[in-house]
Amino acid sequence: MILHDLTPGMHPRRVRIFLAEKGLSIEKREVDAAGGAHATPGFLRLNPLGRLPVLELDDGSAIAESLAICRYLDALHPQPPLMGRTPRESAHVEMWTLRMDHELSRPIVDAFAHTSEFYRGRIEQVPEVAAWACRRALQTMAWLDRELADRPHIAGADYTLADIVAQCALVLGKAVGLRVPAEMPHLARWFAAVSARPTARA
Amino acid sequence: MILHDLTPGMHPRRVRIFLAEKGLSIEKREVDAAGGAHATPGFLRLNPLGRLPVLELDDGSAIAESLAICRYLDALHPQPPLMGRTPRESAHVEMWTLRMDHELSRPIVDAFAHTSEFYRGRIEQVPEVAAWACRRALQTMAWLDRELADRPHIAGADYTLADIVAQCALVLGKAVGLRVPAEMPHLARWFAAVSARPTARA
Repeated sequence: MILHDLTPGMHPRRVRIFLAEKGLSIEKREVDAAGGAHATPGFLRLNPLGRLPVLELDDGSAIAESLAICRYLDALHPQPPLMGRTPRESAHVEMWTLRMDHELSRPIVDAFAHTSEFYRGRIEQVPEVAAWACRRALQTMAWLDRELADRPHIAGADYTLADIVAQCALVLGKAVGLRVPAEMPHLARWFAAVSARPTARA
Repeated sequence: MILHDLTPGMHPRRVRIFLAEKGLSIEKREVDAAGGAHATPGFLRLNPLGRLPVLELDDGSAIAESLAICRYLDALHPQPPLMGRTPRESAHVEMWTLRMDHELSRPIVDAFAHTSEFYRGRIEQVPEVAAWACRRALQTMAWLDRELADRPHIAGADYTLADIVAQCALVLGKAVGLRVPAEMPHLARWFAAVSARPTARA
């Protein structure tokens, strides 16, 4: 297995943290996206969307989409559990993972993509989309602050993939000036705790 | 189990088709979202985001997010397989399901939410977001047309959850004038085929 990686990317970071929490070490190959390596015919055969991360399997086939990669790794290496242990728990963790993906990651990625120098000329940048996305991200953060008032992690007592998705989103948030506001102490406490895990810099 | 449902909603439709394909029949309870029933304290206890569908379990707990609901139902009722049979297959179907969710459903939902009368005054509507979302949906449809040139379904030979997500998105697309363009014959052939399944009106 080879993980096609992009060190500064938000989605690849999810997979690296997931691997580190599982105690797994697999070959990583950095893709020079700034140099256009994600848009070559060879890479587009792995992922026609030209995005990272991609997990290339030993038979040459490839899995893209960070959450699908994590699920595949979880099926092969269930311990420690990061996606629930029973159908009921797994559904609960997936619900929170998808909420973090849709309600937090998505607006932060939009805010970044529609303002960053890197994407200028590469995608259509719409200032109104960036502004709307920032407002949405802050609304989600305020909701999360309330949710985290009475539990240590996003989906409950345990650290899960939902936390990984949320913490990677907030790391990218810093790049667009979206930091946890002072009036959100529970979210700040959670972010400090997950950022202090040994795997957070994976 | 009770499925809290919203008949015209795109996400509830995913679950209804999934149930029908599995041959499952569970109690459904329509939520009067137009009348505000999704925003009552009772409903917000089931889903603090106030969205449909929600699967209420017999212990009173609830699973929101349509894809998490489908996975839970799939774990309980694996036949017929709609999410793959092996870790490798499951990852492949999940990759395509997430692509359809992110690249097709998401822009079509944005285009609808930012223009529809129903959402006026309920959410912030930004005309530029709707226009950008329509352009993105059409780009995804053009890509899908190429992908479907050499296979019957989104993820390969078999009908899966990825098809359900995509077909529900295109049903909503009609409401914002996003129909399959004449120059996309493979996408049109696929959409006609999935729309002709007995479960498509579930």
